[in-house]
Amino acid sequence: MRILITNDDGIYSEGIRALHDSLKRIGDVTVVAPDTERSAVGHAITLSDPLRVKKVSRGGEFFGYATSGTPADCVKIAIRALMKKKPDLVVSGINLGPNVGYSVLYSGTVSGATEGAMLGIPSFAISLATFTNPDFTYAAEFARKFAKLMMTQKKLPKGTLLNVNIPAVPKKKIKGVRIVKQSEKHVEERFDKRADPRNRIYYWLTGEIITSDGNDQADIETIRKNYVSITPIHCDMTNYAFLKDLSQWPVTL
Amino acid sequence: MRILITNDDGIYSEGIRALHDSLKRIGDVTVVAPDTERSAVGHAITLSDPLRVKKVSRGGEFFGYATSGTPADCVKIAIRALMKKKPDLVVSGINLGPNVGYSVLYSGTVSGATEGAMLGIPSFAISLATFTNPDFTYAAEFARKFAKLMMTQKKLPKGTLLNVNIPAVPKKKIKGVRIVKQSEKHVEERFDKRADPRNRIYYWLTGEIITSDGNDQADIETIRKNYVSITPIHCDMTNYAFLKDLSQWPVTL
Repeated sequence: MRILITNDDGIYSEGIRALHDSLKRIGDVTVVAPDTERSAVGHAITLSDPLRVKKVSRGGEFFGYATSGTPADCVKIAIRALMKKKPDLVVSGINLGPNVGYSVLYSGTVSGATEGAMLGIPSFAISLATFTNPDFTYAAEFARKFAKLMMTQKKLPKGTLLNVNIPAVPKKKIKGVRIVKQSEKHVEERFDKRADPRNRIYYWLTGEIITSDGNDQADIETIRKNYVSITPIHCDMTNYAFLKDLSQWPVTL
Repeated sequence: MRILITNDDGIYSEGIRALHDSLKRIGDVTVVAPDTERSAVGHAITLSDPLRVKKVSRGGEFFGYATSGTPADCVKIAIRALMKKKPDLVVSGINLGPNVGYSVLYSGTVSGATEGAMLGIPSFAISLATFTNPDFTYAAEFARKFAKLMMTQKKLPKGTLLNVNIPAVPKKKIKGVRIVKQSEKHVEERFDKRADPRNRIYYWLTGEIITSDGNDQADIETIRKNYVSITPIHCDMTNYAFLKDLSQWPVTL
């Protein structure tokens, strides 16, 4: 099994190393990841600048390719230029912090897997639901089991990837796995307005992360209750339920 | 009617000026847009750097606020920090080039409207389907009519925005308006591999844009046939049709 690994925390992050070390036990692993952190880049791609690629070692051994691009760029260039054969699987992560609710749209980690799905390759994103003191051990173990399972299942529908979130608790406290929808909750954001030493104004985006929305059928509540959440995400963003209503609008030229 | 305008081609682009000039005839317009082009940024937001905002004049008059951020950042900071009252409508565009098929996920223009929808405000993105010699006149006229119409209709469903694409032909050649789905076609991409003067390798992302997929019910074919396309896009990316199948997978901890 050929596995392509990417992430948005950058090639030097601990999450991607844990994923690499775990997945190399079951397949031929290629790492292509951003050279620095690219969090919250959404599905950005690099059109106005060229991409640079360099080989990176970790612990004295060749680890993978670092690019000057986004996670989506990494998957594109891996498949279109760097890998001799297409991968059988794309895995993006392990992200530091959950990717749930509306944050899925901002997530570079998810966009790495989205790009894989767009290119017709089975893909999943995996995130650990903590921003501090991460222990990636169980998430990496789950990723390995899940990668093997994916290979035994029927292909995912066109343009569909899986978004996996792992609660940040010891393995024995994890209660199970739930297949759920993406929550529709958003971060409660605000801007901190500050003045720099030259007295010019600047703003920091900040806000409170929503850790509960009371919906047991959606990702936020699922990881809060210490279940692994798996959500099928697709690239077709059409709101089909609303197509008919919209057709009744008296739109004229 | 208070209208917030943004785009991804930057505050100095011709498309946003045409939109501004048209919409100010029907409402109180605020422009908050990136200070330079931010195409293909997807739903990127700026977390690691502060945002700067400056006032911009065009033609000797105050035109709007330029920010150092992405279209999504612009909408956030407009609503959370710059505007005294929430807008009644967010319009993103007029983009130079269509935003159809899988490109919707890469589009900064669409992400401006997506951010508006996330914040609960009626929002649409508007794009002109050409990259060369654009004439924004009709697109700007359509945007004005459509903005008025939106205000008379029932609210869009939660987290839903409208993605409008205008064929780049004279008004009298436009055949009508169609409510369609997002096509699932992707750009046929490849990388140009080059060496710089210091003989280091770099890559340019390039490729052929798909201008037809034969699906009359989807956006690409609709604009090719000289109809205006309108697609309802939503922020819930769950593939509901696949949830049940996925629940049958033997996933274990």
